[in-house]
Amino acid sequence: MMGRPRGATHSKVVLYNSKGEKLVECSGPGTNHWILGMEECQKRIHNMVDQAKKEAGVPIDEPLTILGMSLSGCEQEETNHKLKQGLLSKYPKLSLQYMVCSDTVGSIATALDKGGIVVIAGTGSNALLLNPDGSVHRCGGWGHMLGDEGSAWWTAHKAMKICIDEQDNFVQPPHSTKFVWGAIKRHFNVETRFDLLDHCYSNFEKSKYAGLTKLLSEGANQGDALCLWLFARAGEMLFKHISALYSMADKSLLQESGGLSVVCVGSVWLSWEHLKPGFTGHCSHPEMPVIPELTLLRLTTSMAAGATYLAAKEIDLDLPRNYQANYTVFFHYKCSKT
Amino acid sequence: MMGRPRGATHSKVVLYNSKGEKLVECSGPGTNHWILGMEECQKRIHNMVDQAKKEAGVPIDEPLTILGMSLSGCEQEETNHKLKQGLLSKYPKLSLQYMVCSDTVGSIATALDKGGIVVIAGTGSNALLLNPDGSVHRCGGWGHMLGDEGSAWWTAHKAMKICIDEQDNFVQPPHSTKFVWGAIKRHFNVETRFDLLDHCYSNFEKSKYAGLTKLLSEGANQGDALCLWLFARAGEMLFKHISALYSMADKSLLQESGGLSVVCVGSVWLSWEHLKPGFTGHCSHPEMPVIPELTLLRLTTSMAAGATYLAAKEIDLDLPRNYQANYTVFFHYKCSKT
Repeated sequence: MMGRPRGATHSKVVLYNSKGEKLVECSGPGTNHWILGMEECQKRIHNMVDQAKKEAGVPIDEPLTILGMSLSGCEQEETNHKLKQGLLSKYPKLSLQYMVCSDTVGSIATALDKGGIVVIAGTGSNALLLNPDGSVHRCGGWGHMLGDEGSAWWTAHKAMKICIDEQDNFVQPPHSTKFVWGAIKRHFNVETRFDLLDHCYSNFEKSKYAGLTKLLSEGANQGDALCLWLFARAGEMLFKHISALYSMADKSLLQESGGLSVVCVGSVWLSWEHLKPGFTGHCSHPEMPVIPELTLLRLTTSMAAGATYLAAKEIDLDLPRNYQANYTVFFHYKCSKT
Repeated sequence: MMGRPRGATHSKVVLYNSKGEKLVECSGPGTNHWILGMEECQKRIHNMVDQAKKEAGVPIDEPLTILGMSLSGCEQEETNHKLKQGLLSKYPKLSLQYMVCSDTVGSIATALDKGGIVVIAGTGSNALLLNPDGSVHRCGGWGHMLGDEGSAWWTAHKAMKICIDEQDNFVQPPHSTKFVWGAIKRHFNVETRFDLLDHCYSNFEKSKYAGLTKLLSEGANQGDALCLWLFARAGEMLFKHISALYSMADKSLLQESGGLSVVCVGSVWLSWEHLKPGFTGHCSHPEMPVIPELTLLRLTTSMAAGATYLAAKEIDLDLPRNYQANYTVFFHYKCSKT
C-alpha cells in the first residue's frame, strides 16, 4: 500500500505495509495531468512506484494492494476515473486497486479526521473545504492561466509584471524595483524584458518561476520593500481563499478548539512572517466577512499519509492513525471584532 | 515587391509591382514566431508568398525584389535578423531582399509619414510611438502571459475569470454574469468551469478567446451590463497605452492638426462605442497625465502597405504613396482641462 502526493513540480511516493509502517519514501517529478497529458502522468506514476518497490525490496511484478494517489489536477471524477482505468489497463502489475483524490483532500486527510480547510500555496495554489459529511467546496486551483493567486507562480509573475510595467511607463511600481529586477535578471539569465519572452512562451516552465519566488523571499528577509509588498499581497490572496470557503463550513468545524483548522501546504507558507501582514490585514478588512477564529497547521509528514488513510478506508482496513503526529500549529487567530 | 502584416491569428500577403500597383492580396494563418517557433513561422511565410505568386501569375521560381514584412512578434533586431537569414538560406527563390519590422511600425508607416502612435488591439495588444527621427518607444505587446491589456484575449480572459471567481465565492462580479457565462458555455461548448481547463492548458488556442470577445461585443450591443463594463475596462487599458507613450512623443507630432495621431488597429477597435466610456473616462482621470488633443485613425487598407513603403525606402525606390487614402478618422478628442 502507498500514498502519493502532489504536484506540479515534485511528487513523493511512500510505501506502507498493512500495519501502517512506512517502508520507503522516494521523490519524483511533477505529475499534474493537465500539464503533462494523461499518458505521461500515468507513465511517471508507474516509474516512480517501480522505483519505490525496488528500494523497498518488493518484487516489481507484485502488485500493491491499493495505490492511494493524492494528486494536483485530480479534482474531477471523470478524469480521475480515466487515470485509474489507464493505470489498470497499461500497468496491470502496478497495483490491484486505486484510490484517487486531489492533493487538497489528501492534505486534509493527513491532519484532520473530521475535515477542515486546506490552502495549498506551492508553485500553484488551491483551496478546499471538506465537511464532516464528506461534502467538499473549493476555491481556486485553476492554474496559472486562470488563477493561482498567492502561489509562487503568482508572486513571481506579479514581480515580473511590475518591472515590465514600470519599464513601459504603463504602471508605476509600489516600491523600487531595483532588487526585484536584479533578481529576475539573475534568475532567468536575461538582460532586458524582451529576453523574458522566451521564458514565458517558447520555453515556458512553471516551476522555473517558483525559483524566482525563492529569491524574492530572500529579498523580503533582507527587508526589500517590494518583496515585502509582494508577499503581503500573496498573504491577502491566501486569506481570501479561506474567506471564500468559511461560510460553507459545517458548524461543528468552527466549534473545535482553536476554531476552524486550516492545513497550509506548499513552499510559499515557509514565508509566513512575510505573508502575515497581508493575511491578518485582510482578516479585519471591512469588506471581508468576519472569521472569528482560525488555526493554521503545517504538515510534518508527506500528504501521502492522508492518501494512504483514505485508500485504507476504501478497502476497510483499520490502519493505525495518529493525526497529532502529522502536523504542528504555527498560527492562531481570534478576531477582536466579534 | 510585397508587404505582409500581422499577427497571432491571421496574416495577409499583398504583392505590388514597382509602380505601386497592387497585384494580388491573400490571407493566411498566424505568423507570430513566439507562438509558432521560428521554423514554422518561416514555413508559413514561404507558403503564403508562393500562394500569392501563383494567384498573381508570377513564376514561383522568380524571387521578389524585396519582401517587406510587418509582423507581430518582430520587435527585436536579433530575432528579426534570424528570421531574415533563415528565409534567405532555406528559401533562396522566395525573395532577393527582406525588410522586417513589427506590426506596430508597419501600421504607422501605412497612415503617417512623420510618425505617431499605433495601438493594436486584436487577439493581443501592443502600442508603439514612432518619432520623426526614427526613434521608437513601446508599451505593451508582451503577450497573453504578461500583458495584452485591452485585447480580445484580455477581455475574454477577464470575462472567464469573473465568472470563475463568482462561482468560487472568491470575488463578487461587478454585474450579473448571466449573459457572459452563457456565452462562455456556448462558445467553448462546456457545462462547468472545470471543463474550461482543457481550453486553458492542454488545448490552449489564443485565437479561440478572440471569438468569445466577439460574443461579448454582441452582448454589449444588446446592453448587457457586464459586457459593457468589460469593454469600458478594455477602453481604459487602451488609453493607458497612449498615456504611457505620450510624454515621449516629439513636439512636432503634438502640433499637427488634430493633435497626436493614433493609428488604431485590430478587431477590438470595432467596438469603439463600448470602449469609449472607459477610454474617455480615463482621459480625465486625475492620476493620468493630461493629453491635450488626440485623433484616432482606422486604417482602410492592409498594413501591408506600410511594410511595402518601408521596404521601398530600404532599396531607394520612390513608390507612389497616398496616405490620406489609407485611413479614416473616427474620434477626435480635445481635453477641456488645458
